[in-house]
Amino acid sequence: MTDFRALGLPQRVPAPEPGALPSRVTIWEVGPRDGLQNESTTLTLDVKLEFLRRLAAAGLSVLEATSFVSPRWVPQLADAAELIAALPQVPGVRYPVLVPNERGLDRALEAGIAEIAIFGSATESFARRNLNCGMAEQFAMFEPVVSRATSAGLRVRGYLSMCFGDPWEGTPDPASVAETGRRLLDLGCDQLSLGDTIGVATPGQVETLLKAFDEVGVGVDRLAVHFHDTFGQALSNTLAALRAGVSTVDSSAGGLGGCPYAESATGNLATEDLVWMLDGLGIEHGVDLDELVRTSVWMARQLGRPSASRVVTALGGS
Amino acid sequence: MTDFRALGLPQRVPAPEPGALPSRVTIWEVGPRDGLQNESTTLTLDVKLEFLRRLAAAGLSVLEATSFVSPRWVPQLADAAELIAALPQVPGVRYPVLVPNERGLDRALEAGIAEIAIFGSATESFARRNLNCGMAEQFAMFEPVVSRATSAGLRVRGYLSMCFGDPWEGTPDPASVAETGRRLLDLGCDQLSLGDTIGVATPGQVETLLKAFDEVGVGVDRLAVHFHDTFGQALSNTLAALRAGVSTVDSSAGGLGGCPYAESATGNLATEDLVWMLDGLGIEHGVDLDELVRTSVWMARQLGRPSASRVVTALGGS
Repeated sequence: MTDFRALGLPQRVPAPEPGALPSRVTIWEVGPRDGLQNESTTLTLDVKLEFLRRLAAAGLSVLEATSFVSPRWVPQLADAAELIAALPQVPGVRYPVLVPNERGLDRALEAGIAEIAIFGSATESFARRNLNCGMAEQFAMFEPVVSRATSAGLRVRGYLSMCFGDPWEGTPDPASVAETGRRLLDLGCDQLSLGDTIGVATPGQVETLLKAFDEVGVGVDRLAVHFHDTFGQALSNTLAALRAGVSTVDSSAGGLGGCPYAESATGNLATEDLVWMLDGLGIEHGVDLDELVRTSVWMARQLGRPSASRVVTALGGS
Repeated sequence: MTDFRALGLPQRVPAPEPGALPSRVTIWEVGPRDGLQNESTTLTLDVKLEFLRRLAAAGLSVLEATSFVSPRWVPQLADAAELIAALPQVPGVRYPVLVPNERGLDRALEAGIAEIAIFGSATESFARRNLNCGMAEQFAMFEPVVSRATSAGLRVRGYLSMCFGDPWEGTPDPASVAETGRRLLDLGCDQLSLGDTIGVATPGQVETLLKAFDEVGVGVDRLAVHFHDTFGQALSNTLAALRAGVSTVDSSAGGLGGCPYAESATGNLATEDLVWMLDGLGIEHGVDLDELVRTSVWMARQLGRPSASRVVTALGGS
């Protein structure tokens, strides 16, 4: 069990007075990839396709569909190529896929996808464990992936994981995180998603990191946030990010997923809980909440366990 | 099943730019009363006393200990008098108890308690169902309770439930809620706790209601907030309330409790999840989180079910 408290978590970062909220938010739905990759129940290709079809029907316009990672690491997503070949074609719906390296890019290009995401690390420890290279070496690893992808006309998103704390080092220095993120963007990514992979962040930390990015010339228009709800902070942190001007938020239908490093069942921020807050704040998002709740109730049945989303529990009758 | 969406929930209330955070927050721990009263597993007097002793040892200074409600309504708290007689005496720790009416006050005075809370309603429907009287009649019912209590030197807190929505009427008018709350305070209460009894509120609503109170002459120094996490919004709403200047927050260790009207297992804001956020924001609260998590792990064993708190799940190894 990770001793989060001994690592000085949560880090103490008072929050300054924040700003106004955006009028519209893009929800980047990561359930099919970040959610399912951590689920132990193996789903069939048909179930995954039905999940994507339902998410699109609920109005979600960015669906991170799968990952071209090695099937040995993530057996759940071993059917990535078949999935991409059979994706429901819905006008206005984008299907980015995660690509860990050049081999993954080859498979993605072969499958004819239009948009990829790469997955970098904000800490040395996580880089060594998850990328099998050092912090500094990751840029060399990603450089040919991004340049080949952009040359082929693909859009590239960068993920930066462990931005607010990791289970080995505690809290990384915000200036260092921002510098790492800027270098990933400079490779040719059009957006960077800041991940709280173990869910330890609090709102002051979010605002501080966004300021650190601003100081290295990266504005909130190029940033997204990706919170996990391990410590119950995901929605508060999202509120802080929205207040700071961020308008792309990652979430997972039904709160699917989790982090294997946090030894807890708690997954991503649930899309339904996010939508409830956005609805209440009058922020546009394009999602039909009732349709989405029905989808998550259906997915919970496929996985044989209740949804982690509070909204799904309250509205879904499950 | 209540059709929350047909009731127009969540209500759309955009949030203005909020203010700075308080440097210190008083946590009003409601687990022993609001938490346990909704738990179906009956606990012994010894377990309840041990719970209170552990909560005090964890640094919580306001413990709402029990309720002098009719044992027919809340069998779990039928031992209120014995509990009060055996309360652990800890310097600086207050033990308010809930008192529904004059009969309850008689029992509370007999037990020698120093502090009571009354439980009013912000909506007509909930008043009729929970108080067996109309909205307007509740003041006549509470008037002798509060005047006799204050004459006897007792401190009196007012609860105002269903401030942000109820399962029959939808969202009440903020000006009407503020007027009802002001009248409860005018009876002689020194603090009013604004309850989101079914957990539907979002941050803009919180700020709007606090402004409505200000407009009827009730400042944030006399207000507390009481959020349920039914729709996952409790901590975000708390953040909004803190930003508006509120510095007393109700919560329940381990997220104990629930609302019988919401047909969901989700209870109060978990004290641990609140403490994690306050810790991260550098806001003083006096609570030892590790001790509190151990307490909630122990209580979860007594109740035979996992804690609803994300922090307890992540840190408690349960």
